Amino acid sequence: MASQNRNPEIRKDAVNNRWVIFSPARSRRPFDFKSKANPNPNNQSECPFCIGHEHDCAPEIFRVPPDPSSASWQIRVIQNLYPALSRDVAPPNSSAPNSTGDVAISGFGYHDVVIESPVHSVHLADLDPVGVGEVVLAYKKRIDQLRCHDSIKYIQVFKNHGASAGASMSHSHSQIMALPVVPPSVSARLDSMKQHFDQTGRCSLCDIRSNDLLIDESAHFISIVPFAATFPFEIWIVPVDHSSHFHDIDGAKATDLGGLLKLMLRKISLQLSNPPFNFMIHTSPLKDTSPAQLPYAHWFLQIVPQLTGTGGFEMGTGCQINPVFPEDAAKVLREVCIPG
Amino acid sequence: MASQNRNPEIRKDAVNNRWVIFSPARSRRPFDFKSKANPNPNNQSECPFCIGHEHDCAPEIFRVPPDPSSASWQIRVIQNLYPALSRDVAPPNSSAPNSTGDVAISGFGYHDVVIESPVHSVHLADLDPVGVGEVVLAYKKRIDQLRCHDSIKYIQVFKNHGASAGASMSHSHSQIMALPVVPPSVSARLDSMKQHFDQTGRCSLCDIRSNDLLIDESAHFISIVPFAATFPFEIWIVPVDHSSHFHDIDGAKATDLGGLLKLMLRKISLQLSNPPFNFMIHTSPLKDTSPAQLPYAHWFLQIVPQLTGTGGFEMGTGCQINPVFPEDAAKVLREVCIPG
Repeated sequence: MASQNRNPEIRKDAVNNRWVIFSPARSRRPFDFKSKANPNPNNQSECPFCIGHEHDCAPEIFRVPPDPSSASWQIRVIQNLYPALSRDVAPPNSSAPNSTGDVAISGFGYHDVVIESPVHSVHLADLDPVGVGEVVLAYKKRIDQLRCHDSIKYIQVFKNHGASAGASMSHSHSQIMALPVVPPSVSARLDSMKQHFDQTGRCSLCDIRSNDLLIDESAHFISIVPFAATFPFEIWIVPVDHSSHFHDIDGAKATDLGGLLKLMLRKISLQLSNPPFNFMIHTSPLKDTSPAQLPYAHWFLQIVPQLTGTGGFEMGTGCQINPVFPEDAAKVLREVCIPG
Repeated sequence: MASQNRNPEIRKDAVNNRWVIFSPARSRRPFDFKSKANPNPNNQSECPFCIGHEHDCAPEIFRVPPDPSSASWQIRVIQNLYPALSRDVAPPNSSAPNSTGDVAISGFGYHDVVIESPVHSVHLADLDPVGVGEVVLAYKKRIDQLRCHDSIKYIQVFKNHGASAGASMSHSHSQIMALPVVPPSVSARLDSMKQHFDQTGRCSLCDIRSNDLLIDESAHFISIVPFAATFPFEIWIVPVDHSSHFHDIDGAKATDLGGLLKLMLRKISLQLSNPPFNFMIHTSPLKDTSPAQLPYAHWFLQIVPQLTGTGGFEMGTGCQINPVFPEDAAKVLREVCIPG
């Protein structure tokens, strides 16, 4: 079918004004497209992310520790074998709409995978705080490489855990996508934070600490359930000091974040029976940001356990229905008892 | 737990500027909240939506044909037993943010259910075009009642089919929610259509017919795959004549829409192995619309087969990844052969 040989494309229509990435590399053939569960929950013996199977993966970008000749490694950052965006097409140079208001630009971008452990059964929350911090620093290092490209406007770090949260591989990993456009949710978030700053002179996340929404805190971060949590038991980990870009994190703060992230992942696993979950790092766009620190933009990490489905109401309105009040979720998560 | 006795509340935070409905009536107790599949795929013998079980339902609003003394009926419109919004609380009278920019208003609104058939095994696509048209007219009649309330700003009609599309009941039904706020996706859609109109002098949906995206057409409607389809095999049914509000539909057009909707539902069922799906009617807000016709706002019905999951990338960016190009999906759907 034609689309199988096509490059990815990013489109926006005149009705919704939302970017959509068309990525034939991620598709089965359209006429074979049937509703069925993921047929591919890979097992350990054939997992390309396991140590010793490096040759089954797309090219490595770097590893930790950084010795490519060694057979051992702790973290590997590799290209995604089925990238949603292509590093091999020309970056878009304009996005002028056609006569019907539709926009299509080339699907240029980067889509990488961070393998968080060489061992199949070891999940991110099983690492010690320093180990989780090393994963955080691998994100930072890769972002520092990607943000040198003038065409990259935003970098999304995210993790899908569990098939129903979008993970096609069970070996613990996260992903980094570098985009040639600023995505709509990011623009909306930045606009909202700027509006709050313009009205109050304060950053909305510098002010966010609230006793009944607080879960835990570390030296440099707090974890809270947000006031208007979109999903039950949603958690935000927010740096206490104002910072616009995640990639400005240093080694000490990465280890500190590693400890708090590990604690939150263990708490949701214990309280909610190891649910599928996603986490996303919400940072600021890369360009048009001089000075690098924006007084209204404050990065944070969002964790979403996948407990409720999305139905037609949510798709139609963009409004979620959350059955659990944030104060109640925060109390439950504050009081989870971590064994040992 | 406290939230069990609380009224629903609608909140917006200063970071995302998105409304979220907190609805304790739809919750299990938070500390019992575990990740597991819906335990409640009701079977026929105890289905409250089946004929003869009317007493197991929340109060009836109206039925079709309109004779409440008769034991037989074709369609029933009832209150939702677990409403996300409450008709019994006072409507919000302001939405001023507090000092941290957070907004909370009362969870006033209506949440109704349209039972599309008295028989458990009969699905919407099994009805004849006139029968589907009667369901469409039941939506219109209920909207005409709800839009008399000054506090109602938007009405969302939607259908969830299949557990993974959000349906908790397998008996064929759809839902109507009347909201005291205009939801964010609706505002964004209207803004986008208005911008296109201001730039071109044309409505973006009056111009949407494109041969390689067209699936089918009837006397008054066309069905297409949109140029930037958010999901694989997403379908829009669009009235050919400009119309801002779904509720202006008449009997002849409802039957015509019924026929095309039935055809599209049969096509995705045949082509995609009876997938879970959602459909949503995207109409215009109720207030601030004099004249009732807005030159840029054109209602449509969106059908989304649930074939791909939502992962962290989509949650973080608001950008979907669609593996199927719209032209390819339209060609496949155009050529589906309907037996009989």
